[in-house]
Amino acid sequence: MDKTESILPVALRLGINSRHEPLIFLRSDSPVARSEGFESMSRVLVQVNNKSIIATLLIVYSDLIQSGFAGLSETAWKRLKLKKGQRIKLSHAPQVDSLAYIRAKAFGHELNKHQLQEIMRDIVDGHYMDVHLAAFITACANNNMTQNEILYLTQGMVDAGETLTWPGDKIVDKHCVGGLPGNRTSPIVVSILAAKGLTIPKTSSRAITSPAGTADVMETMTKVDLSFEQLKQVVQKHHGCLAWGGSVSLSPADDILISVEKALDIDFEGQLIASILSKKIAAGSKYVLIDIPVGPTAKLRSEESAQALANQLTTVGGEMGLKVKVVLTDGSQPVGYGIGPALEAWDVIGVLKNASSAPADLKERSVLLAGVLLEHAEVEATGEGKSEALRVIESGEAWKTFMQICEAQGGFKHPPVACCKMDVHAERSGYIRRINNRLLSRLAKLAGAPADHASGVYMEAKVGHYITEGSTLLTIHSEAPGELEYALDFYNTHKEMIIIEEGL
Amino acid sequence: MDKTESILPVALRLGINSRHEPLIFLRSDSPVARSEGFESMSRVLVQVNNKSIIATLLIVYSDLIQSGFAGLSETAWKRLKLKKGQRIKLSHAPQVDSLAYIRAKAFGHELNKHQLQEIMRDIVDGHYMDVHLAAFITACANNNMTQNEILYLTQGMVDAGETLTWPGDKIVDKHCVGGLPGNRTSPIVVSILAAKGLTIPKTSSRAITSPAGTADVMETMTKVDLSFEQLKQVVQKHHGCLAWGGSVSLSPADDILISVEKALDIDFEGQLIASILSKKIAAGSKYVLIDIPVGPTAKLRSEESAQALANQLTTVGGEMGLKVKVVLTDGSQPVGYGIGPALEAWDVIGVLKNASSAPADLKERSVLLAGVLLEHAEVEATGEGKSEALRVIESGEAWKTFMQICEAQGGFKHPPVACCKMDVHAERSGYIRRINNRLLSRLAKLAGAPADHASGVYMEAKVGHYITEGSTLLTIHSEAPGELEYALDFYNTHKEMIIIEEGL
Repeated sequence: MDKTESILPVALRLGINSRHEPLIFLRSDSPVARSEGFESMSRVLVQVNNKSIIATLLIVYSDLIQSGFAGLSETAWKRLKLKKGQRIKLSHAPQVDSLAYIRAKAFGHELNKHQLQEIMRDIVDGHYMDVHLAAFITACANNNMTQNEILYLTQGMVDAGETLTWPGDKIVDKHCVGGLPGNRTSPIVVSILAAKGLTIPKTSSRAITSPAGTADVMETMTKVDLSFEQLKQVVQKHHGCLAWGGSVSLSPADDILISVEKALDIDFEGQLIASILSKKIAAGSKYVLIDIPVGPTAKLRSEESAQALANQLTTVGGEMGLKVKVVLTDGSQPVGYGIGPALEAWDVIGVLKNASSAPADLKERSVLLAGVLLEHAEVEATGEGKSEALRVIESGEAWKTFMQICEAQGGFKHPPVACCKMDVHAERSGYIRRINNRLLSRLAKLAGAPADHASGVYMEAKVGHYITEGSTLLTIHSEAPGELEYALDFYNTHKEMIIIEEGL
Repeated sequence: MDKTESILPVALRLGINSRHEPLIFLRSDSPVARSEGFESMSRVLVQVNNKSIIATLLIVYSDLIQSGFAGLSETAWKRLKLKKGQRIKLSHAPQVDSLAYIRAKAFGHELNKHQLQEIMRDIVDGHYMDVHLAAFITACANNNMTQNEILYLTQGMVDAGETLTWPGDKIVDKHCVGGLPGNRTSPIVVSILAAKGLTIPKTSSRAITSPAGTADVMETMTKVDLSFEQLKQVVQKHHGCLAWGGSVSLSPADDILISVEKALDIDFEGQLIASILSKKIAAGSKYVLIDIPVGPTAKLRSEESAQALANQLTTVGGEMGLKVKVVLTDGSQPVGYGIGPALEAWDVIGVLKNASSAPADLKERSVLLAGVLLEHAEVEATGEGKSEALRVIESGEAWKTFMQICEAQGGFKHPPVACCKMDVHAERSGYIRRINNRLLSRLAKLAGAPADHASGVYMEAKVGHYITEGSTLLTIHSEAPGELEYALDFYNTHKEMIIIEEGL
């Protein structure tokens, strides 16, 4: 060990979850901190063997870190694939060239293909701090991206991650832009399409701001965090999968951007488009169906804005060689009965098992979407997709395929049932006039969804139904009495989430 | 202790410097993390006694934090004024209303007075994460602020901090927008004005990206981190002070914004204007002189842009009741001999002591600025300020006042002298044609400035001088042989920092 090596600190795994941003903790009196003149919150290049990362430095003025050690957060430890006792080399992080492009965007310049590719690559390589991502997001907000920039952003996201390829041409996928509670058509559509022999490598997200994402729902029934290899095997064997996208590296730049967008509560349309399309392209899809629910409390509030988004998705997708079909659907109220991971899973099982108690609206939407996708992929003739999709469900083929996929992903289990329930009753008789998706989502989240899988809301009320005073509007499900109380309080102060009026 | 209290964790001082952003570290298996459903990087309200802060949570999956404890960074600990063994209450942070205004700005809306005041207040109260500040900065970049917004931003910064008041009307101050190495006129101007009996409560910053700030220079001669009370006493006794602005709370929102701007390398003119004016208004000044050096490698590169900035400073200042006078000065080369805290301090001492070896250009600038300020404050008649300023120096009154201020701030000491020096020689004879401020600043920083007070560059070369081959152009001063090497390497690869040509 030469003189320089002797001052290299030993890496210490601190077990701190700082999400995607790597952190390093160093004593103020450590030789390397002094010799390099490091300051707290500065960017440090950490090197070991042939690997390197840029981490944010936190200087420690206590014995939290012992002399001769440098503490690393989980992301930092894993990215460097460190082993216990290894020494790491620390130096000032080099200048990240693509930050100049973010500044250029902030000052109103249009970015070219190379620049957006570099930005996406540097996001994935962990070369930015979250403040840089926040600057990028803000600079692109307010419709500040041209169609070319959105195209390059999409391409950049694809290039910065892994990609999948499949034999044959009939590689399909579906996506919903979200915002509609209970709209859990994916497990049903995947089961139908896979049963028909089309390849549908579906990856889904967990809930970002909603009470459940498809990955959360599937997790109540099977394993969803598959490795890249596992996912490939499941799809090769059963034509489809229902996996969590976070554990495979399809468009990882997008995942990182989303986490910062969530903190800012700012998103930009360019990112929404690039996010959807990049994941589908990286998954190897050729034909994609996108469901855009439209309604006063859905994500898209007007037909006009939904159509504009649809046009951009189709155009940018087309430029990337993806055949995109968009369906605008009714987003005026939740779909099915359940809102929350397990409650939605029970709805899915009901539809797939052809149960008479299954929610008719979820079944209707699922066969509609599956039918359109069958026609879009030119597997069924125009006008015949929906009846074929219905047949696949009613014959039991879809359920059989769903079970095969679950078994291949790690085994099927029944979704959990909540310990605590409370019914909410109508205070008057009348017709259900309007339902507020946002308030209902909030209610389900206050009940514990998505973290507590069994928690959420079970809806009895549907727009247009006549309801008599005292009958059940909805049931709150919760894993803890405290949360049940909390959710009920919210309901009682926000009864406008379900509007009942005399006459239709 | 009731049941709820028993799960309150005990606060643990971790001694981690995370700058202004408070951090809290909590075990994943702690009762409060589980019952509240906290996620890593979420925002948590921390309460103790009557104090509360919002901190960013880092979940720990190891024994770094013991059961029953919650670790706090230094900022978090100090803001809550915690004592060892105190229990803290943790809950989800409430929604910060003013974040909606930042989003509005990102989407192109003009902000009103109330909104900008709220944003500044929330910055100071620590209600934002750095990503929110990054979004605000980016949304305001590219000349996106109206003059009214700049006015409200300035007012908001003043209102969110402490303010000083002084008896009488002749409260003066000076400020340089920076970017010119060695331009250390403040200690001299303050000494002249205070000697004349005008009140000049000067606070300065430490270097942000430069080799020295006035606070760094003064720190080589006296104590600069004065409390609010100490600062008041020094000024009451000797009419002036030369303190670090960071330890008094004048416009603290500005300091926080600057730290994020530094990370982004994005700044906006509105902030520059609000930054300068809010600090002067908060310090109780009535007459302010602003020095804007203009030159190809200064902060302001053209007379036109400097004049535009000058107009905005004068107009916005006027709206706030501040009499602003702007002087555009020559920014084509460094001022004085020294670049770096101690080397600049020696220049200041030379001028104040009337030494024949003192740099003539620093003296000339200082008496010019002091003279303009004397006339601007209507203490001297037009055309008589400069000669009076010169008289105050040459009579020794300025030096006497400077020493009194230093003694009152904690005692005068001589600046340190570097252990290692290396001369850089001219490779040819000729006239010095151009000097690059930015490269020279970089050279001084590589030598160790501002962290190592004695390090930096001592300039012999001045534009227009004739120099013979082999004579000394500059001397690099350093506290460590390694840094001396490093700086010399940089000089050898960037000799264009001093251009020598035959003929003028």
